[in-house]
Amino acid sequence: MTMQTLPRIPSAPRLPRLSRAQVAVTQAIEVLNEYGETQSLQIPAERALTVYVDKREIVTLMTLGAQPEWLVLGYLLNQRLVASAQEVESITVDWEVGAAAVKTYQGIANLEKKTAKRVVTTGCGQGSVFGDLMADIDSIHLPAATITQSQLYGIVNTIRLNDSIYKTAGSVHGCALFQGERMLMFVEDVGRHNALDAIAGWMAMQPNESTGQGARTGMSAHDKVFYTTGRLTSEMIIKSAQMGVPVVISRSGITQMGHQVAQRLNLCAIGRATNKRFLCFSAPERLLLEAGLAGARLKVA
Amino acid sequence: MTMQTLPRIPSAPRLPRLSRAQVAVTQAIEVLNEYGETQSLQIPAERALTVYVDKREIVTLMTLGAQPEWLVLGYLLNQRLVASAQEVESITVDWEVGAAAVKTYQGIANLEKKTAKRVVTTGCGQGSVFGDLMADIDSIHLPAATITQSQLYGIVNTIRLNDSIYKTAGSVHGCALFQGERMLMFVEDVGRHNALDAIAGWMAMQPNESTGQGARTGMSAHDKVFYTTGRLTSEMIIKSAQMGVPVVISRSGITQMGHQVAQRLNLCAIGRATNKRFLCFSAPERLLLEAGLAGARLKVA
Repeated sequence: MTMQTLPRIPSAPRLPRLSRAQVAVTQAIEVLNEYGETQSLQIPAERALTVYVDKREIVTLMTLGAQPEWLVLGYLLNQRLVASAQEVESITVDWEVGAAAVKTYQGIANLEKKTAKRVVTTGCGQGSVFGDLMADIDSIHLPAATITQSQLYGIVNTIRLNDSIYKTAGSVHGCALFQGERMLMFVEDVGRHNALDAIAGWMAMQPNESTGQGARTGMSAHDKVFYTTGRLTSEMIIKSAQMGVPVVISRSGITQMGHQVAQRLNLCAIGRATNKRFLCFSAPERLLLEAGLAGARLKVA
Repeated sequence: MTMQTLPRIPSAPRLPRLSRAQVAVTQAIEVLNEYGETQSLQIPAERALTVYVDKREIVTLMTLGAQPEWLVLGYLLNQRLVASAQEVESITVDWEVGAAAVKTYQGIANLEKKTAKRVVTTGCGQGSVFGDLMADIDSIHLPAATITQSQLYGIVNTIRLNDSIYKTAGSVHGCALFQGERMLMFVEDVGRHNALDAIAGWMAMQPNESTGQGARTGMSAHDKVFYTTGRLTSEMIIKSAQMGVPVVISRSGITQMGHQVAQRLNLCAIGRATNKRFLCFSAPERLLLEAGLAGARLKVA
């Protein structure tokens, strides 16, 4: 028997074990309408999920509860409390007590310092390290990527046709991740930041792609597009950029700081996207317009 | 000269000195529309305001910047970092450095403990003491108060006609305080929680009313109604209750926890309020319906 030099087989990345906690995301209540009639109404859940990392309480998230494990993982990543999913051994959510127990392999270095600074953002005060993140913006270099007008319309149409808690119960925000016009993942939550964090967590659990991009997350972000029903505040733009997604689409508008950050990062932010209408707020060179696609213009007398 | 027993003149409550920092709340940017045309668009400001209490950094709020002093005062009150405005000597906002310097007379007792617990709510993670607040819900007793259907319609109509940043630039939430159908105050911000806090701050600066209610705030809340364009999440309901306002109206819906808390507090939460339509989510006995006001019913075939 002779020794052979075998090609080195890359070991599969060690991913966290996640529980699969299930809980009702809507509830029917009785309400009174303007005619004094009682009617039934579906409303979205909102529940407290307290996150413990290695038995230490970090934060309580108010969430719909649809994807709690991805939410917690994405929260830890987007808050940069962990650098990759591989640092996490397991996440176990127990709705009976409203707790998520996170176990890490090595613990989190400088946890005190990392959670000391509180920033209350517009969408949600997830910004314990947000202040530091702003300083790091210039170190983010988004990959070259474009979106065509027909892809944009395809995405808006897919969202329009998608089944959602929003259609049943309202009062939630949705976030989706697209590749081309294909929707890879759709998450809803009572806060748009939560929905985005859950997508970050889901991405981190996907097999690594070969591009070398997105080292932090399992899935490469360079050819992905985010869609959100919520406003493009600074927090949403920064999180997208942090995750490496260069194009973001919203049904809503943008704030001044969201706009500034998007411009600085050369992130293509498109808003007010409904039917054939939209506004491109930043990096218009990433948007490939196609003549005639917008349809005939309505005449204004 | 004879000594006389004069009626004791109550000393005017000592109110904080507030700066009057001014800053632009909207900005025009150039955007590209679906026809490839450049157009001008107004967007709302979003800026960081770091709050220092007696030179100690407490939190950074992301805000529109319209009413920063009331926002900071209301934040301190709603977070229960101070028990009344009388504890605050001055609030000085400086937009050059994005800082609000709060000076108290006595300092804040147990500041460490009060800011230790972080709850990230749906609207915004202002909840450093939110966890404690939930436990205190049962100690809140809202005053008896009702709202008539015509008052409700009057409020919705006043909001509809009101000039607002929302109409110009979108992407902001508005909160208003009503007495009867009269709008006493209207505040907009990029986060609805901020708008509500600013109203709390404004109320605290008003002359004390004689009812004995609302000891914490200058203005009595027992006969007031809150209006908000935002969703009625648990945070919004709790803050309203904490301020003593027994009736809350929203253009949007309600979450399950918002509903639970409203029911428990017997707070009248009315949502989906546009034109003649609305849904009463809780405490329907506080809502006085008036026959015929809702108008003719649309026939559904």
